[in-house]
Parts: sequence; C-alpha cells; structure tokens
Amino acid sequence: MSPEFDAVDVILTKRDRRALSDEQIDWVISAYTRGDVADEQMSALAMAILLNGMDRREVSRWTEAMIASGERMSFADALDGRPTTDKHSTGGVGDKITLPLAPLVAACGAAVPQLSGRGLGHTGGTLDKLESIPGWRASLSGDEFLAQLRSVGAVICAANDNLAPADKKLYGLRDVTGTVESIPLIASSIMSKKIAEGTGALVLDVKVGSGAFMKEVDAARELAETMVALGSDHGVRTVALLTNMQTPLGLTAGNALEVRESVEVLAGGGPEDVVELTLVLAREMLAAAGIDDVDPATRLKDGSAMDVWRRMIAAQGGDPEGELPTARETHVVPVPADGVLTRLDAYAVGVAAWRLGAGRARKEDPVQAGAGVQLHAKPGALVRGGEPLFTLHTDTPERFDRAMEALADAITIAPEDSRPDLLPLVIERVGA
Amino acid sequence: MSPEFDAVDVILTKRDRRALSDEQIDWVISAYTRGDVADEQMSALAMAILLNGMDRREVSRWTEAMIASGERMSFADALDGRPTTDKHSTGGVGDKITLPLAPLVAACGAAVPQLSGRGLGHTGGTLDKLESIPGWRASLSGDEFLAQLRSVGAVICAANDNLAPADKKLYGLRDVTGTVESIPLIASSIMSKKIAEGTGALVLDVKVGSGAFMKEVDAARELAETMVALGSDHGVRTVALLTNMQTPLGLTAGNALEVRESVEVLAGGGPEDVVELTLVLAREMLAAAGIDDVDPATRLKDGSAMDVWRRMIAAQGGDPEGELPTARETHVVPVPADGVLTRLDAYAVGVAAWRLGAGRARKEDPVQAGAGVQLHAKPGALVRGGEPLFTLHTDTPERFDRAMEALADAITIAPEDSRPDLLPLVIERVGA
Repeated sequence: MSPEFDAVDVILTKRDRRALSDEQIDWVISAYTRGDVADEQMSALAMAILLNGMDRREVSRWTEAMIASGERMSFADALDGRPTTDKHSTGGVGDKITLPLAPLVAACGAAVPQLSGRGLGHTGGTLDKLESIPGWRASLSGDEFLAQLRSVGAVICAANDNLAPADKKLYGLRDVTGTVESIPLIASSIMSKKIAEGTGALVLDVKVGSGAFMKEVDAARELAETMVALGSDHGVRTVALLTNMQTPLGLTAGNALEVRESVEVLAGGGPEDVVELTLVLAREMLAAAGIDDVDPATRLKDGSAMDVWRRMIAAQGGDPEGELPTARETHVVPVPADGVLTRLDAYAVGVAAWRLGAGRARKEDPVQAGAGVQLHAKPGALVRGGEPLFTLHTDTPERFDRAMEALADAITIAPEDSRPDLLPLVIERVGA
Repeated sequence: MSPEFDAVDVILTKRDRRALSDEQIDWVISAYTRGDVADEQMSALAMAILLNGMDRREVSRWTEAMIASGERMSFADALDGRPTTDKHSTGGVGDKITLPLAPLVAACGAAVPQLSGRGLGHTGGTLDKLESIPGWRASLSGDEFLAQLRSVGAVICAANDNLAPADKKLYGLRDVTGTVESIPLIASSIMSKKIAEGTGALVLDVKVGSGAFMKEVDAARELAETMVALGSDHGVRTVALLTNMQTPLGLTAGNALEVRESVEVLAGGGPEDVVELTLVLAREMLAAAGIDDVDPATRLKDGSAMDVWRRMIAAQGGDPEGELPTARETHVVPVPADGVLTRLDAYAVGVAAWRLGAGRARKEDPVQAGAGVQLHAKPGALVRGGEPLFTLHTDTPERFDRAMEALADAITIAPEDSRPDLLPLVIERVGA
C-alpha cells in the first residue's frame, strides 16, 4: 500500500515545477478514481501538468497508475501463439482506415483486438461508422470478444468500463476544464487504454494538420515519441507514423459514406490515399507483430481481407450484404472557377460533416448514419467551374446553410500550372 | 447584461497566456457565484491565473466583479460627516493590533467599520480572540452595526454573507486546490471585501517573514502595490506598510492571552513593539481619513481609547471587566544556554500555539480560549540558561509534546556580544 498523501501537497509539487514522485502519482490516480480526490483538485493538478509538464518517468508512472485503476487484458494463452497487433489514430477527417485495416491484418495472420471509441466534435468515431451497418452492435462481453478474436482474428468494439477507469473519469474532466491539450496527458490517456487492452504490438497513426488535434509536425513528433516510449516501457512493441491531415482522407467524411468507401477498398478499389495508408499501416502492424512473410497487398487483391470483414461484421450482428442507409437530402456545391485545386481543408470538411449530422457536440447526442460530405476532387486535381465539388448529405436539410458556411473558405483554386504544396501522406516514422 | 460566454473559452484564454476581457471576467465570476461555472472549471482557471498571472486591468476588474457579486455598504450619510477608516493585516503570529487600534482610532475621531475573520492554520483570527471575552458576540445585524458605529465609533464583527459572496466561494475552493499563493487572487480577495465593506480609507499591514504569508520583501511589496492600486481604482484612500513578521508581535500568541496583552496596551502599558505598531497604524489610518490634528499617543495615555474599548465590547454583549478564561494546564520551556537571543521564529511559535488549541485546522473546528504561547524574551534580550523562555498554555496537556516539537528549532542563542540581524518593525511604506 502506498502511504496516504494530501491532494494539496501533490498539486503544490507540480504547481511549483517539481517532479511528482511515483508514490504521489499512484496515490493521486487511485484516490481520484475512488473519489477521495475531488474533481476540483484533479482539474487544478491537470492545469499545473499542462503548464509545467511531466518528465519521461512521471508520464510512464502516470500511465501505469491509470492502467492499474482497472483490469489489464491478456491474450497470451488464448490465441495459440497468434500474435496480437493494433493501431490507434489520434483522429482525423475521413479517417476510416481501421475498417479495411483490421480485417486485412487479420487476413495476414495476426489477431487485431481493437477497442475503439465514438466521435466527438469534427472527427468521426469508428464505432459510429460501423453502427451505420444494419444490426451491427458495438458492445461485446469479454467471452464474446475472445471467441471472435480466436475465430475471426479481428474485433472492433467498445471498451468496457473496467479498462483504465481513471482515464475515463479524467478525460471527461479535462474536456470541460481546458486541460485537453497536454502531451503528457494525451499520451498517457491513449497509451493506458491501448496497453490495458492487451495488444502485443501497436502502430500509432499521429495525424498532423488542420483536421487533426496536432497542427504542427514538431508537436506531433513529441507526442509520437512520448507514446512510443510509453509502449516500450510497458512491453508493447510500438511504432508511430506522422501522417498528413491537412486534407481529408479519401473522398468521404460521414458514417455510412465512409463504410461504403472502406468496402470499396476491401473490394480492391477505393481512393488511392486510403489504399496506400491502409497498406503502409498494415505492413507496420505485421512487422511489429513479427510477421514478415506476407504482403498485405496480395490479401487485399485476393479477397481474403474482404472475407474477414464479412465474418467480422456478421459476428457482431451486422449484415455485411445489407443496404447501407443514405441521407434523405443531398445538395451539390459546385467548383467556383477553373484551375488546379491546391488546398482542400480537412478541418472545414470535418466541421461541415459534423454540422450535417455525422458528428455530435455532446457525448449523449445521436448521429445520422447517412449524413456527411462527399468530395469530387482532391488537391492536385484540375477542376472546371460549375462541376460538382462537394455533395452534402443530411436527413435535416435546414443544416445545409451552416455546413456551407463551414466550407466557405475550405478550398484554394490556383492557375492551371500550379502545384499544391502538400505534406506527403506519410511524413515521418518514429520507432522505439 | 453581459453576453453568454463559455467557461472553457475563458480558461483557454488564461491558459494560453492571454489577458481576460472585462466581459469574460464579469461573466465567469457571476456564473461561478450562481453555480453555472463548476468548481472544477474555476479551480483550473485559478491555477492558470496563479501560473500565468493577471495584469493591472484584469485584477481591478476581477475585484470589481467580486464586489458586484454582493452588496456594497455605504456610510456616507449615516455618520454626519465623520470619516471612516479601517485596517487590514495579511496575518501574523501574535498580531492582536486590531484590538487596541480600532478603539484608539475611534477615540481620535474617525469611525472604524471593521469586518473581520476567524483564524485558519498558524495565524489567529481577530474574532476568535474577541470571542474569548465572556458574552461577546461576533454577529451583528446591519442595523446593529450602523447603530454601534454611530454611538461607539468602532465595530469589529463578522462579515455577513452578502458581502462579496464570490470571494467566499472562491476562497474555499482555492484553499483545497493549491491556488492560494497568487498575488492577483490574494489582492482581489482582500480588497473586494474591504471595498464592499464601505470604508473610505484603508491601511494595509502587509506582514513579511517566517510567520507571514509572504516570506520575502519583494513579494510583499508586489502584493502591497497591487492592493494600493486596487483601493485607488475603487475610490478608497489606501496605504500599505510592510512590517516585520520574522518574530511574533508582543509576548503572546493565543486568544485570551492576546486580549489580555491588548488591554495592557490600552491601559498605557504592554510590549513596546505592539504599542509602536498600534501608534504607527493609527497615525496612517487617521491621515488617510483626513484627520491630522490628534496625536493618538495622547488618547492612549489619557484613557479615552480604553473607554471606547469598554463601550465597544459591551455593545456586542461582552463584559469588559469580566475575567478572561485561562488554560487548565501550563508548561514552562526553559532557556537552553546563556547568551543573546538573536532569533525567535514567528512561524514556529504560531504552529505551537495552533497545536496547543489556539487555532484550527478546519473551518468548523472549535478553538480553546485559553490556549497559546507566552514568550519571556524577545530577540536582542540577554538570557540565562534555565530561566523561562516559553510558557505553553492548553486545556489538553497531551498537546504539549507536539507543541514542543514545533518549537525545537525556534530560537538561536549567540555569544553575549552578538546582535540580532532583524528587519525593522516597519520595513517600508507603499503609498498611492
């Protein structure tokens, strides 16, 4: 047992720019989880951490303490030696990569135990997307989870409440107290859940650009390095890629719209950037899991990834052949002038999709399965005035105006010989 | 009406080192007072203010908003032109100055409307001290307050709940969230109450040294300058003195012990430092009130200050001739060696008095009227080993050990030709 501490002493330590001891961290996380440290004390501590930072040891211990607040899953004995590997994205616009990626990696021989979340704000959530499939359910019992992981090789479902409950409580608090944007707190939040989830290997897709949480490469690199170190500290082989989120991924942002695009990728088609990022991440996930004798591109071509997808959806009650919902109303926004599309802003598209009904402002809000934005061109394309640029989808047409406001400054069209100044799709790799 | 704001936006403004707008400050204080901004949001904001500061305009507006959260008293018409003047001390050990000072200043022709507080931690509270007088009560109605101010010229009583309620709520929050030690928050807390109290002039006694909140002259000066500026901004003629709190004031720390010493001063005796500081502060209070034709020293000598004291105590139900309580047990701590007492630490004496029962750890704790520490020597005195150094007083003798622990390193005795290296009693004056 750790000795008893006083919440004010812990706050003063960080406020006065000193390092928290291991014992202070263990105590404050555990006392906060059981309610002995009050929300107003934890929020003052979170603000002090945000402004004064935490060193590598502190972040590692903080993560450890959040994991210890709940159960830590383990598949070591359950999968007959099949390695587990997972991916986490820090969130972007049109980021449906998990949907083709999880079945693809399973088709290559690894098991993918992905506990995922719902969207809040302008980025969509993987569970919201999958829930647009008729019948599909996000909640599984522990036994169902394990059985599906064994038989199908891939599970995407909601985390249960026993997984890092301290993180759940702290994240809700940070959301209302202006203490979200702290690299130590973001890194420990993501990594405590992923480590507790029990995966043996992890690939982090750290998004950079207007549509991402991290707008600058330097901050994204710091977050990536912090998370990779945390993974290594806790025995999870972890790699991070910094990837481009200046512009949306693929040609859709919205729940059913993105499922449809993901199925196209699994069928061997789909937008080039979605296919490329799916393959890059699949290779990293397989390498981290020690599988180097399979090329995921072949498993996409030969239909085996699609096969796993169908079984994965069906195992969770969904109909993989069922018709996906479509929005009741659409509205086409035309290209304003001839030229080259040199900028298509991810954040603007994310906000438009959100306003059309694809996202939620509060955790308890419902989302529209069919709502979202469809893109008819991507940066680099030659466009002609009057051609379709965006198609907006919603069940509630009174939302079109506010979505179009969000898109008012979303694009730049330059003379025909211009080239867009874009970051590459994969900007940088951060290894252990 | 101010427009609606969002608490998180206000927090982010200060977190990101920008200045809060007047409208943000008005809104956040008012919304916090009525419960629309949650404690965990206000504590995050308080931590951001503590770490990132507030400029002169922000502190002034913050103070204004705290005043506006309740009623602002005014005596302009009620006193037939008699000026009002008050004193506030930031708190020290053995600081009983208010007790002789208020009746003395009233005896010189000004009215003293002092709303005072109870002690918390190692510094005593004026109300706790006066409550050791049999029958005396701290709570007065508004009418009683005004009637006594008119007839006696001095009132020391508890503030009612309508005076700066935002400050009351915020102070309780800061106390448990490690956000007390912020000059903008301390200054606005003190000044919002004093300005709302309706005094026309104010003298601030800003204590410096081990027994005070401010350990260093520079920080105390910054606090003094901030408060003097706030007074001027709000039409209260304000002056501050930085005074020495390295060593206790007078020869007693404890409730009834300090009342007894105060009565000695009113009777023309008492310790030199208590008499000197009482007279210095009386002259400042009178000057700030525009009274320059009376020497308070004569009103101490001729018994007129004692006369006001008796009437002031009697008006609040106390018996000025009644016997003061004494503790059931005493214990004498002897001088350990021959020499000159060069250091007698105020904080150590304050903690010892607190542990003996004179102070409280929580707002709801009772205090012992008779408990405390009596000093038999002050720095500069020649002392002989074996003579009494401290007499400890308590009703609960099991407290002696912990009180003596607090005093273990309280003194330095140096060879006979040594001189103590002490700050002067009055270190500096800060005027408008």
